[in-house]
Amino acid sequence: MNIDKPKCYCGVFGIIGSEGPAVKAYYGLHSLQHRGQEAAGIATLHESENGKKSFSIHKDNGLVNEVFKDKDVFKSLKGFAAIGHNRYSTTGGSSIKNIQPYIVNYKSGHLALAHNGNLTNAKELRKELVNEGAIFQTTSDTEVILHLIARSKFEDQVDQVKDALSQIKGAYSITILTDDKLIGARDPYGFKPLCVGETKDNGFIISSETCALDINFSTYIRDVEPGEILVIDRETKSPENFISHRIHEERRTHKHCIFEYIYFSRPDSQIFGQNVDKMRRKLGKVLAQKHPVVDKDGEKVIVFSVPDSSNTCAIGYQDHLVKQGINSKLEIGLIRSHYVGRTFILPGQEKREVGVRVKFNPVKGVIEGRTIVLVDDSIVRGTTMKQLVKLIKEANPKEIHLRISSGPILHPCYYGMDFPSKDELIANKFNQDIEKIREYLEVDSLEYMSVDEMLEAMVNQDPEHFCTACFSGKYPTKVNTAITKEEYED
Amino acid sequence: MNIDKPKCYCGVFGIIGSEGPAVKAYYGLHSLQHRGQEAAGIATLHESENGKKSFSIHKDNGLVNEVFKDKDVFKSLKGFAAIGHNRYSTTGGSSIKNIQPYIVNYKSGHLALAHNGNLTNAKELRKELVNEGAIFQTTSDTEVILHLIARSKFEDQVDQVKDALSQIKGAYSITILTDDKLIGARDPYGFKPLCVGETKDNGFIISSETCALDINFSTYIRDVEPGEILVIDRETKSPENFISHRIHEERRTHKHCIFEYIYFSRPDSQIFGQNVDKMRRKLGKVLAQKHPVVDKDGEKVIVFSVPDSSNTCAIGYQDHLVKQGINSKLEIGLIRSHYVGRTFILPGQEKREVGVRVKFNPVKGVIEGRTIVLVDDSIVRGTTMKQLVKLIKEANPKEIHLRISSGPILHPCYYGMDFPSKDELIANKFNQDIEKIREYLEVDSLEYMSVDEMLEAMVNQDPEHFCTACFSGKYPTKVNTAITKEEYED
Amino acid sequence: MNIDKPKCYCGVFGIIGSEGPAVKAYYGLHSLQHRGQEAAGIATLHESENGKKSFSIHKDNGLVNEVFKDKDVFKSLKGFAAIGHNRYSTTGGSSIKNIQPYIVNYKSGHLALAHNGNLTNAKELRKELVNEGAIFQTTSDTEVILHLIARSKFEDQVDQVKDALSQIKGAYSITILTDDKLIGARDPYGFKPLCVGETKDNGFIISSETCALDINFSTYIRDVEPGEILVIDRETKSPENFISHRIHEERRTHKHCIFEYIYFSRPDSQIFGQNVDKMRRKLGKVLAQKHPVVDKDGEKVIVFSVPDSSNTCAIGYQDHLVKQGINSKLEIGLIRSHYVGRTFILPGQEKREVGVRVKFNPVKGVIEGRTIVLVDDSIVRGTTMKQLVKLIKEANPKEIHLRISSGPILHPCYYGMDFPSKDELIANKFNQDIEKIREYLEVDSLEYMSVDEMLEAMVNQDPEHFCTACFSGKYPTKVNTAITKEEYED
Amino acid sequence: MNIDKPKCYCGVFGIIGSEGPAVKAYYGLHSLQHRGQEAAGIATLHESENGKKSFSIHKDNGLVNEVFKDKDVFKSLKGFAAIGHNRYSTTGGSSIKNIQPYIVNYKSGHLALAHNGNLTNAKELRKELVNEGAIFQTTSDTEVILHLIARSKFEDQVDQVKDALSQIKGAYSITILTDDKLIGARDPYGFKPLCVGETKDNGFIISSETCALDINFSTYIRDVEPGEILVIDRETKSPENFISHRIHEERRTHKHCIFEYIYFSRPDSQIFGQNVDKMRRKLGKVLAQKHPVVDKDGEKVIVFSVPDSSNTCAIGYQDHLVKQGINSKLEIGLIRSHYVGRTFILPGQEKREVGVRVKFNPVKGVIEGRTIVLVDDSIVRGTTMKQLVKLIKEANPKEIHLRISSGPILHPCYYGMDFPSKDELIANKFNQDIEKIREYLEVDSLEYMSVDEMLEAMVNQDPEHFCTACFSGKYPTKVNTAITKEEYED
Repeated sequence: MNIDKPKCYCGVFGIIGSEGPAVKAYYGLHSLQHRGQEAAGIATLHESENGKKSFSIHKDNGLVNEVFKDKDVFKSLKGFAAIGHNRYSTTGGSSIKNIQPYIVNYKSGHLALAHNGNLTNAKELRKELVNEGAIFQTTSDTEVILHLIARSKFEDQVDQVKDALSQIKGAYSITILTDDKLIGARDPYGFKPLCVGETKDNGFIISSETCALDINFSTYIRDVEPGEILVIDRETKSPENFISHRIHEERRTHKHCIFEYIYFSRPDSQIFGQNVDKMRRKLGKVLAQKHPVVDKDGEKVIVFSVPDSSNTCAIGYQDHLVKQGINSKLEIGLIRSHYVGRTFILPGQEKREVGVRVKFNPVKGVIEGRTIVLVDDSIVRGTTMKQLVKLIKEANPKEIHLRISSGPILHPCYYGMDFPSKDELIANKFNQDIEKIREYLEVDSLEYMSVDEMLEAMVNQDPEHFCTACFSGKYPTKVNTAITKEEYED
Repeated sequence: MNIDKPKCYCGVFGIIGSEGPAVKAYYGLHSLQHRGQEAAGIATLHESENGKKSFSIHKDNGLVNEVFKDKDVFKSLKGFAAIGHNRYSTTGGSSIKNIQPYIVNYKSGHLALAHNGNLTNAKELRKELVNEGAIFQTTSDTEVILHLIARSKFEDQVDQVKDALSQIKGAYSITILTDDKLIGARDPYGFKPLCVGETKDNGFIISSETCALDINFSTYIRDVEPGEILVIDRETKSPENFISHRIHEERRTHKHCIFEYIYFSRPDSQIFGQNVDKMRRKLGKVLAQKHPVVDKDGEKVIVFSVPDSSNTCAIGYQDHLVKQGINSKLEIGLIRSHYVGRTFILPGQEKREVGVRVKFNPVKGVIEGRTIVLVDDSIVRGTTMKQLVKLIKEANPKEIHLRISSGPILHPCYYGMDFPSKDELIANKFNQDIEKIREYLEVDSLEYMSVDEMLEAMVNQDPEHFCTACFSGKYPTKVNTAITKEEYED
Repeated sequence: MNIDKPKCYCGVFGIIGSEGPAVKAYYGLHSLQHRGQEAAGIATLHESENGKKSFSIHKDNGLVNEVFKDKDVFKSLKGFAAIGHNRYSTTGGSSIKNIQPYIVNYKSGHLALAHNGNLTNAKELRKELVNEGAIFQTTSDTEVILHLIARSKFEDQVDQVKDALSQIKGAYSITILTDDKLIGARDPYGFKPLCVGETKDNGFIISSETCALDINFSTYIRDVEPGEILVIDRETKSPENFISHRIHEERRTHKHCIFEYIYFSRPDSQIFGQNVDKMRRKLGKVLAQKHPVVDKDGEKVIVFSVPDSSNTCAIGYQDHLVKQGINSKLEIGLIRSHYVGRTFILPGQEKREVGVRVKFNPVKGVIEGRTIVLVDDSIVRGTTMKQLVKLIKEANPKEIHLRISSGPILHPCYYGMDFPSKDELIANKFNQDIEKIREYLEVDSLEYMSVDEMLEAMVNQDPEHFCTACFSGKYPTKVNTAITKEEYED
Repeated sequence: MNIDKPKCYCGVFGIIGSEGPAVKAYYGLHSLQHRGQEAAGIATLHESENGKKSFSIHKDNGLVNEVFKDKDVFKSLKGFAAIGHNRYSTTGGSSIKNIQPYIVNYKSGHLALAHNGNLTNAKELRKELVNEGAIFQTTSDTEVILHLIARSKFEDQVDQVKDALSQIKGAYSITILTDDKLIGARDPYGFKPLCVGETKDNGFIISSETCALDINFSTYIRDVEPGEILVIDRETKSPENFISHRIHEERRTHKHCIFEYIYFSRPDSQIFGQNVDKMRRKLGKVLAQKHPVVDKDGEKVIVFSVPDSSNTCAIGYQDHLVKQGINSKLEIGLIRSHYVGRTFILPGQEKREVGVRVKFNPVKGVIEGRTIVLVDDSIVRGTTMKQLVKLIKEANPKEIHLRISSGPILHPCYYGMDFPSKDELIANKFNQDIEKIREYLEVDSLEYMSVDEMLEAMVNQDPEHFCTACFSGKYPTKVNTAITKEEYED
């Protein structure tokens, strides 16, 4: 069953100088599973006794658990360094060729690469490269980066990477293995998170989120900076010896994806310098402050979340209701099945309703006769929410008030998030008329956050440092919005 | 990764007189997945054009999703009635032959049977039957019931079932398909739950918990009573036409398994006449009343649960702390991975620690510098809890106080719950010395509930109506405790 | 693709007193694969350190290679003795429950049993047993034998087996494991083959054909005699210590299945006291003597077989043509694909033709312009043969003469062979009018062998010692031919 | 179990202008399975309603049956043309990326390519390409061809192909799909076979052997000529409209791989202008003429083959013995298991012996007391043959004489055949001392054919037109034999 949420970026991971890098990559990808559930892969870099370097790889469609269910694959994933990737397809189809990491041989040796994000000039670059005789085996924009590296005039692999990245535009957080180094790189706007940490045995990990450090008993050092190419070789035993390059001389205003705080990242991760759960709780508080709910008869309002992504937000919301003196209580009103995984829904007239029921069941004792505040982080199409409201109503609440800890999604994301086409977005379908959306969803009230309110919740951070394009349409980089995103990426 | 919890009973399901009974059984088993993750099966009863009845069955090891991943199996699961079973092996090994439902041919026709519970006189009965020439193809005590039915002197299938059940002792909630009827039966003590509900198209469902009604758009009618044999045939279109038999004339004092409220059942289910989430919240409240935590410096204490089974309990706990005027806050301090499924832990020195990390990650911002109350429903071996405490400590809490919403588990269950052997139970290992357990777990304080406290939380219910044998050693039925449970069941 | 041949019996295997019995059973079943390709299983008997006996089993649908593709299963198939079974379903559906060996627990301990053949009084026995309260979990007639053993008045397992076998009628070659013995038994008529051999390490093997001895480096000792129960225990180190029982006191005239020599057994096996390839060559010779082919223009006739089952017969045929002075040459006129295995035929108008093409391709250089004698062992429906002739004709032979080394199949077999229903047999469809069959198959001449001719080919053997019922309708035991075989077995 | 034979080339297939090209490619690959059992793939070319062309592909490790076991894949393999490939890895590891066909996007559109053979200048070309910035995703030399096409200065796809092929050296039979054409091409020496045929619905097939035409009801037109690029577009409805290009202006002396006639090709195929079975029979005749066997006591000698590859040869051998007046008889002395497929051999001291036994069993009645001539086509390491002889000896022949219908293999093949390393070849191990090989194999006599004898058997063909390098060391093209083949291809 597909839930109605924006589809995520991907997750990237890299490790060097630590024992059992493939196994640590496996755990790391496991902890980053929420960033991409379609495919997973790990590539390792091995040095044989005669000093010859070779790469090994295992990748396939499926969850990390499924792709690596045969433990024997780890026997072949030998080496002193590894990179890994969880994938949700943004551009590029679901063919096995599109699964990352990619490994290639080229003039300067081997290269393995894992990419999170979406390039905005991939189409033009691809055209140029193809005209020069390049062969493309995948439809992924990541392959463009590989060709740029291979065609670079520079001889040193790091220089080649820098040369290639200086030509690409858009969003990217990347891990690369060369024949002897681990490289992490992030676009100048810092759209996506990327951090570096240290293992207990003085190796280093580069990963999308800090949860991949935690699972590996590793400590967070710092973020890979926007616009930075961070190089760690096998001998590096201290962060002081990291080598850092700038992709471009000039610095750009950071444009962090605000949706990472709203929904994508794990609440136990720290990204963009802040704990995710803190930001998510704060979104709940601002939501409560600007969009409170009071029972018309003065009775207690019951606050609960659509589990699990909105749990922290709901806590913040109810907490702030209390602070405002509103009689309220936090409850668990919906039970989420832990086994939903690949449950299929058999055909039949009630298919959509069953889909929601397989995933959620309302707790009747909590709901019956109460004024309910249902807190969720976002609405995309609205189809799931409509069914969910219907389901909750079977438990006979007094009223249902829906509060969303983000704004109406109106515009496509060109940086790596995947929504349905513009016309399918509920906010566009009803011409941004919230009252009409409320009617469609059949709730007693519906309130979103404004862009300013969301930015207000971004405590300790410059509001200028966020990309809010999917809400505001203000794209930090030049994109051709005259054509559809699908055409754009074709 | 196996978490350190009592292993559950099983889940049973039955349906008659409704469209697509196999698909509804599939959804029902899906919602009962928490009751048994080892194996699943569905049997259907079909009538061909010439009036001939036949049974179809599909069953295998694995989760419901895995066993039924090929939708084509539903094509063969035709018919007008179905029963289903989720299994965690209690007695009987993990062989495919032990997977239920069982289907047999015998003198009076066909019979399919699914059983939740454990018989206490299976060994003796089996011995007798074998001496009379019976062949046993499985090691399960459920097969005993089938032989008793087949050897009954009665001619009517329902009479045979009654005859058989009158001879067995222990715990059982059963669904049976005969050649034309669905039967639900429950032991006289009512150890395990069993309820009956009505579908939208006037069919009937019998299932372990009401969540299996909800997922099928069905309404709860009533429980199958302890000691009742409830018979529903294909023509039954109203609960008034249910035919009810008593297994024994005399009634016994109900002895509901208190662990169903503490841990096993889903919080959105209603069992034994009460909503589970309500009882679980109440357990939290009594726990807070009797075992509160106050910060030594008067600061706010942070309450959080080991997700997800203790979530509701933690809400009750924190709510009651507030009522007692204790400065406290409910938070989400542990993030649980939704993808842990069949994640394997690769060998290595930190294997146990990794196991906990793969499943849980602490939210640092919530924990750091705070006095923490960690609420969990039970401790079995204590190994997972020890690692979990260690993990939480990495986030530097001021103090950790552990509160358990049940008592120390000391005695084996002969009615269908599975613990490790008596000696492995942490409370026995430390001779019930709570202070020593606290030291072992390295928490600042540890408090369990007493049996009386647990029973106090069982609002609206007679304390006499619960089996608390695993805590108190008071078994409602005669069991031979002189021998180990393993020998008992051998 | 299903070829148009009678479907075989099954293959049975047993071993005791030799190292690695499960692995030897695996090889044995591999060599007996031609006797049943639907399912396979191995059961082993293990004694733990404390002297306790236990059985292990692994069985599933598929070829031996497929069922045992995971080598790890052999780790669990421990023990000092094993039995195995290859299955083609005769009676009993293709459910996993019907796969043999069966293992049961009953009053005297454990029993594992593998059965080749078909009982003619299973229906009556089953009825009686069921009336006495027996439960049947399978639809196989083999389960009847288990119940008879379990209900026997005798205390000794061997006596029980004798008691059970004395009540059953029809065809059976059986291997049994009790808690300490390997037993081989064969019906009094000796319908099916069963032999005993000795391994290099002084253990013993009982198996359907001698090819299962050869693959295990073992030497043939003798056949298990018709009507014999042969008992070998773990301590037996010499054939002299075999214990032999008679099922019935009186002896019956042997009635070996003549189709074993015609088609079923492997040519490298020895059964019924003779090498199969010798008998098959002799069938070819008699066929040539009675039904020679001479080119009308005195040119050389080209003899080739439908590979591989008729290869030996074709050699005998051409050899005898030469002896008769007929100008002839043996060739390979059809190439058989070795990879046909589970090749599917996609829908389309030429489906049948493609089916034959996927399996066979004519060698044009051999066929063009020549008078061809195509030798095959049997024709059932005739559909494959019709297509094969059409295919050969594309290579432009002068004439095609079809010679069959058996007679027209007219009657059902009640002893374990599976044909299509009586009406589908080509010889019945054309009312035994050979000329009409010839026309249908579009060959220039068609000749079968008469029953007398077939028996004449059975050199060194008493013609009375064969069952020819499928050709002659003379059933050696009483069978109710008034009803169809399907009803008979229902 | 791996038999001890040279490993084959690959098989290629292409089809255009016929209904259901993917299904026909499936049957074609099925018939070419003997040319490569490691992997298989099919790519199709589809035109959507708006005229847009797209490629679909399905490929994986395994036999054709295994790779295409899910019929649903054919739903996605839509289109009006297809190419397919069976692979045995020659150069390039067994990674999934190396499986063909390859599909790429490049400046002029799409291209799918399947290659049989081995290039001798791939290493140099790869080096050049890499220096120009090319990325290699596979280790296969086929990828070189793709890069050469993509970098060609020409605009037309056919011109690009010609440009690319003019730069490569070595052996290649290739099928290519461009956006609108099917192309077949063959190196100027014609090392490997490639033919073209016509389907019943006026489409065209290009394939390695004619057996892939037969299975598709298609008729042979002619071979793709050595040095020819044959272009067939969708509108082509007659062979007259084929467009033919020459790779080079000058023609080279054909150098057909003699091993295609000895062992590789199917006997029912026609290659290099002759029926394979005819050449194979002739090899047997010349072998008999030059290396006859006479029983020392004047008794009949028994001739049999190692099935199935030497069956035709053995017929020719025995036939010619008769012509020479030698008392002899053709028999089937070895039964080959049809189910050996992926049978594994479990560890143990007799592993090698078991390996042979699983595949072959001697027919005792044929062998005992007789003088045997065992005819085989080639010996590589000799390990299998040694075990086979041992196995045959268990049946007590009077004498065993081994006759090989080719010469001792001494030199590596650089054109697509795979042997073990030079040192492992039995003929090198014993320094070409046939007597020592005989002693090692423990046969009474051993005779190979000389190169001249083999060429003598190539009736109707110019002896100059064969490559015999693996026997003679005379390579038709320049190869660097100073280094090992492994280094050569590294």
